[in-house]
Amino acid sequence: MNLDALPPIEAGPRADRLRAQFPEAGVDALLVTRLPNVRYLTGFTGSAATLLVRPDELVFVTDGRYGEQAAGQLEAAGVAARIEVGTTQAAQRAALEASVDGTARLGLEAHGVTWAQQRDYAEWFGTTELVPTKQLVEQQRLVKEPAEVARIRAACAIGDEALGAVAPRLAGRPTEREVGLWLELEMRERGASGNSFDPIVASGPNGAMPHARPSARHIEPGELVVLDFGCIVDGYCSDMTRTVSVGAPSPDAAHLYDVVLQAQQAGRDAVRADATCADVDHACREIIDAAGLGHTFVHATGHGVGLEIHEAPRVAATARDTLTAGSVVTVEPGVYLPGVGGVRIEDTVVVLDDTDLGAEALTGFPKELVL
Amino acid sequence: MNLDALPPIEAGPRADRLRAQFPEAGVDALLVTRLPNVRYLTGFTGSAATLLVRPDELVFVTDGRYGEQAAGQLEAAGVAARIEVGTTQAAQRAALEASVDGTARLGLEAHGVTWAQQRDYAEWFGTTELVPTKQLVEQQRLVKEPAEVARIRAACAIGDEALGAVAPRLAGRPTEREVGLWLELEMRERGASGNSFDPIVASGPNGAMPHARPSARHIEPGELVVLDFGCIVDGYCSDMTRTVSVGAPSPDAAHLYDVVLQAQQAGRDAVRADATCADVDHACREIIDAAGLGHTFVHATGHGVGLEIHEAPRVAATARDTLTAGSVVTVEPGVYLPGVGGVRIEDTVVVLDDTDLGAEALTGFPKELVL
Repeated sequence: MNLDALPPIEAGPRADRLRAQFPEAGVDALLVTRLPNVRYLTGFTGSAATLLVRPDELVFVTDGRYGEQAAGQLEAAGVAARIEVGTTQAAQRAALEASVDGTARLGLEAHGVTWAQQRDYAEWFGTTELVPTKQLVEQQRLVKEPAEVARIRAACAIGDEALGAVAPRLAGRPTEREVGLWLELEMRERGASGNSFDPIVASGPNGAMPHARPSARHIEPGELVVLDFGCIVDGYCSDMTRTVSVGAPSPDAAHLYDVVLQAQQAGRDAVRADATCADVDHACREIIDAAGLGHTFVHATGHGVGLEIHEAPRVAATARDTLTAGSVVTVEPGVYLPGVGGVRIEDTVVVLDDTDLGAEALTGFPKELVL
Repeated sequence: MNLDALPPIEAGPRADRLRAQFPEAGVDALLVTRLPNVRYLTGFTGSAATLLVRPDELVFVTDGRYGEQAAGQLEAAGVAARIEVGTTQAAQRAALEASVDGTARLGLEAHGVTWAQQRDYAEWFGTTELVPTKQLVEQQRLVKEPAEVARIRAACAIGDEALGAVAPRLAGRPTEREVGLWLELEMRERGASGNSFDPIVASGPNGAMPHARPSARHIEPGELVVLDFGCIVDGYCSDMTRTVSVGAPSPDAAHLYDVVLQAQQAGRDAVRADATCADVDHACREIIDAAGLGHTFVHATGHGVGLEIHEAPRVAATARDTLTAGSVVTVEPGVYLPGVGGVRIEDTVVVLDDTDLGAEALTGFPKELVL
C-alpha cells in the first residue's frame, strides 16, 4: 500500500457544517467531549481534549502533555482554534468557564459526557443552560468524505493482504493466538498503525462464541475457523470476517457456511442509498430464518465503520436509520451453535451515489470455505 | 514468564464488599456500567454487559454474542449471578426493568454512565430514584489483592525483558515505529495479551511531546529517546518509561537526565502507606523546580495501574488521595523542552504494608542513560 499518497483530510469546514445544525438542536454552542468527534473536527489524535464550538470561534482545551502536539495537528488539518493548555484540572476548568461565559444554551453530547461531568458542568457554568444533544457530530460523520473512504479502503486492502499471507499457514496446526498475532503483524508491516479491535480467531467449538478471544487451542484440519479482524490507517478502521476450513469440513458445516454466504450476499445486495438499515438486516435474517437457524443469529447484521470501529448507523432489525451515499457499514450475518461452532462472513462496504449500483465492498478477500 | 502459575482471581466475595458500602452511599442497589468494574466483580471480559448488584442477588445483563462466554467466565471466577441474555436492546431493557423493579434508590456510576443513559434509565425505571455514586467499585480496586499484584508484576517483568531484547537494536538507526513494534512483539512473545497502551517511542525533538506517537524518524546516536510502554497479562496492565541515548549524549541532555533521575528517586522514596499522593508529586516537583525546570514538567507525577492503565489514585499536586498498602501507582516525572527533546523516567510500584519499606518497584529495567 502506498499510504503516503492518501489525499489530505480537510477538517476546517466541518465546524461550520456543525454550526448549521445548532438552530435545530436548540443550542448556541456545543461542547464536544467525545474524542473521535474532537479528532474529526480538529485532526487532534491525543487522548485528552475538549472542544468548544462557539458561533464565532473554536476553543480547544487540553492538558500540558498535548500543547505542542495540538498546535501542530490543528494547523496541519487546516483548523483555526484558540488553544488553551491547562496544566492542572483547575486551569482547564477556568479556561472552559471563561469561554462558555455568555452562552445561553450550551449543547452537551449527551451520549459522550458522563453524568458526573454533566453535573460538574452544571455547577461550573452557572446560568448557562445545558442542553442534551444527540449525535450531532456523528450525523455528519455518517457521510464519509472521499479522503475518509480512501483511508478505510487502504485499511481494508491491508486486511485482505494480511489474510492472504496468513491463510497458507493455517495448515500447520497453529494456535488461535498465533494466527491472531500473525494477522496483526502482517497488517502492521503493511503500514497499519494498529488493530481496529483485537483479532478474533475462533476454531471448532470456540466459533460458537461470536466474540471469542484467541486461545491456545490448535486449529485442526476440517474445522471451521472464524477470523474477524481489522486495522487502522491514519485513524480509520477496517473490519472483515472470513470463515474457513483447512481441508474438507463436515457436510453439516458446509451447509451452515452456504446459508450464511447466501445471507451475506442478500444483505450486501440490499445495501443502497435510501434503503433502511432494518431492510438490510431483514434481507440477511430472512435467509437464515428460512434455514431454521434464526435463533442462532444472535447479533445485529452490522454497524458503521470510520474513525471508530463501531459507529452509526446500526444495521439491525430495530434500527431506524436510512443509508446514505458515502455511508460505510459492515454486513456480517453469522450463526452460532453452542458446542459445535460458528460461521460469520463480513464485508465492509461503502454506499454509492448510484442506487442501481448499490454498494461497493472495500474488503475483497475471496469467500471460499475450503483453503 | 510462567503465566500458567498465576494464582486464581476469586471475584466471588467482591460483590459483598461492595454491598457493605451501600448504606453510606445511600443506595439500595447499584447498576454497574463501567466494563472494568463489571470485569472486577464477575470475571467477564467481553465488551457489553451491565451488572445490577442487588442486596440478594447479582443480575448480569448482556447481549446475544456473550451468553455462553458470560456463563463460563462467571463460573470460573466463582461468581453466582442470574444471567439475562437479551438479543435486542428492547429485551435487555425489559430484563433490567424487571430486575430493578421495587428498588427505591438505585445507584448509578455517575462517572461511568453517560448523561443520555442516565436520562434513559430515569424514564425506564419509573419511580425508582437514581442516585449518583462516586467510584464505589474503584475504591475497592484501589487495594490490589495478591493475585492482582501477581499479574501486574508479571506484566512488568515482561516489559523489562522486552526492553532488554530491544535495547541492543537501537544502535542500528531504527525508526521510532520499528522500535515500538519490536517492543510490542517481544511482549507478545512472552505471553502478554496486548499493549496496555500504544508504545511511545520519541527521539530527539519528538521527545518534547510527552505522548508523541512513534514516527518514521530514525533514531540517531547521541539523541535522547523516550520509551514508554506496557502490556497486559490476564487483564492487568504494566507501565514503564526509560530514557536512553545511543552513545554519549550532550552535556545538556545528561544534565536533564540527572535531574529527572533524582526527582524520580525522590518520588519513589516518598511512596508509602499513609503518604498523600500530593506529597509524592511534591517530592518529584521540588527537585525539578530547584533545577529551574519546573515549567517543563507539564503533567502529573503518576496514576494508579490495574485493570485499567490509568485508574485511581491520581498522583498529582491537586490530588486528595492517600496511599494505602496494596495500591499500585506509577512515579513518572518528566521534563520537555520544545525543539530540543524530553526525559521521562517511570516505574510502576506497589505500596507495601510496612511503611519503613515504603514501596516495591515492579518494573526493574536499569536506569542507565547511555546504552
